[in-house]
Parts: sequence; C-alpha cells; structure tokens
Amino acid sequence: MSGKRLYLEDLQVGQRFTSASHALDEAQILAYARQYDPQPFHLDAEAAKDSLFGGLAASGWHTASITMRLLVDGGMPLAGGIIGAGGELAWPRPTRPGDVLTVETEVLEIKPSRSRPDRGMALMRIRTLNQAGEPVQVFTVNTVVHRRPA
Amino acid sequence: MSGKRLYLEDLQVGQRFTSASHALDEAQILAYARQYDPQPFHLDAEAAKDSLFGGLAASGWHTASITMRLLVDGGMPLAGGIIGAGGELAWPRPTRPGDVLTVETEVLEIKPSRSRPDRGMALMRIRTLNQAGEPVQVFTVNTVVHRRPA
Repeated sequence: MSGKRLYLEDLQVGQRFTSASHALDEAQILAYARQYDPQPFHLDAEAAKDSLFGGLAASGWHTASITMRLLVDGGMPLAGGIIGAGGELAWPRPTRPGDVLTVETEVLEIKPSRSRPDRGMALMRIRTLNQAGEPVQVFTVNTVVHRRPA
Repeated sequence: MSGKRLYLEDLQVGQRFTSASHALDEAQILAYARQYDPQPFHLDAEAAKDSLFGGLAASGWHTASITMRLLVDGGMPLAGGIIGAGGELAWPRPTRPGDVLTVETEVLEIKPSRSRPDRGMALMRIRTLNQAGEPVQVFTVNTVVHRRPA
C-alpha cells in the first residue's frame, strides 16, 4: 500500500506495472486445492503423473488468487483499489511447485465514463509469469478506475 | 464424486448440470480476502459502505473458487476431471454475506480433437447464481473432456 496511487488521469496507454514475486510450493498448492479444487492432479503428485498435466499443477483459480494478491500488494497501484468487471482469462501452461510468479500489467485502453464523472474504465492485460518469463495466466480485464477528485 | 461420470460422447449441446448449494457468510469472505485479496471492501463492512460495492462483497476470485468447488463436488460430472483452458469471465453483480450460491452449467459446443483421439473440447457456460437466481459470475470456458476409452 506504499507509494503513489494512480487515478484515471494518471494512466496512459502502454504504461506498465510489475509486481513483487511470489514463490509457490507444493504445500500451498495442496492447501488451496483441498479447500477449493480437490482434484487428483492438484492434490497428489503421484496421481498427477497420469493426468493431462503430467505432474502436480496448481489450480488455475489458485494462480488467479495469487495474481490478485500480488496486484493488491503494489502490483497495480490504483487509487480506490482494484475492481474488475470481467474479461478474458487464459491459462496457457500449468503453474508448478517451485514456480516463482510475477505479475506484469499493461494499460491497453482508457475510457472515461460519460454517465459517471467520478470514474472510468481501463482495459488492462495482466500477465502472470513464471521464473522463466513464460505466462501461466493472462487476464485481459476491464477495471473500474476512479478519477482524481476535483 | 458419486454417480455417473461423463465422457465427450455422453455430452450434447443444450445439456445442463446443476450443482449443490453453498451458503456464504462474512467469516468466509474475510478469510479468503485476508489471504488473497486484502482490499477494504472485502475486509471491512464499514469501509465497504463508502466503496463502489456499497457494502461488504466477496472477492470475485473467491466467488470463482467457490464455483470451482461446487463443480468438483458433482456440479460438472466429467470423467477425468474438470480442466479449463480459458474463457470469458464476468461478475455482473457482487456476491454478499448471506448469499447461497448454486452453479448451473450448459454445454454450448462439443469439438472432438482431430490430432488427439483420446480427448476433445467442450465449450461450457457456467453461471453462478445467488438465492434470487441472479448471476454473480458467468464463465464461458473451453474445457478439455476425455473420450470414452476404446
């Protein structure tokens, strides 16, 4: 929550943000999976070998949850917080135990609201990268962004 | 995990599945938010009043996580499990403390793989409904579905 927080007026197309990193391990993968996605390929390294993943993989929703935490912890410094309305979500490759995740965001489009003078929308491409720089998740999302108070 | 598990050959366009229900409360919302989405409107009912949500709301990723659990617990009975490649995700309205969530899935499209004789893709529309039948999340996603072993 440190540093300058950005309003819609502070954004520009092409602007990029980079988050801190998060090191994922097997214990975290199992803990999330037990609660929210208890399928064998997220719970059991041995069973996962015979699955489409070919080995233990994090739930895509776990990857999404970690991504959100990295954004909230400074990866997307928007005044008023990070509120997504929806978008296109893809998991191009699995997230694995031992992966170190970083989130890179690019501002694609900025749209002030005509009806709501206090806010606008910004289309963001949020890429979650592993330690090899490969995307494990890409979320292209419309976010609600506050305008600077008059 | 009970009942018949479906292969690609068992699916048909227009087929629907309904999950069990999950009752969400404030404690669950706070627990998820503390770990993955610690923003005031997900953590503090008082602070949330002044936010765009106008009151405490679950993180969208929490709604997504609960949705996945309901699918795994019988809401989408696919042989080989539920594996999404990506899709269009929307949160048309907030999820609130006291909401009772149910997931309804409809098969939109079925596409056997040409290169992989053991599998295909099914496009699914997965709607998470509150107790009023209003969608709080809609995820239209391509899922990997196993073909029945020869």
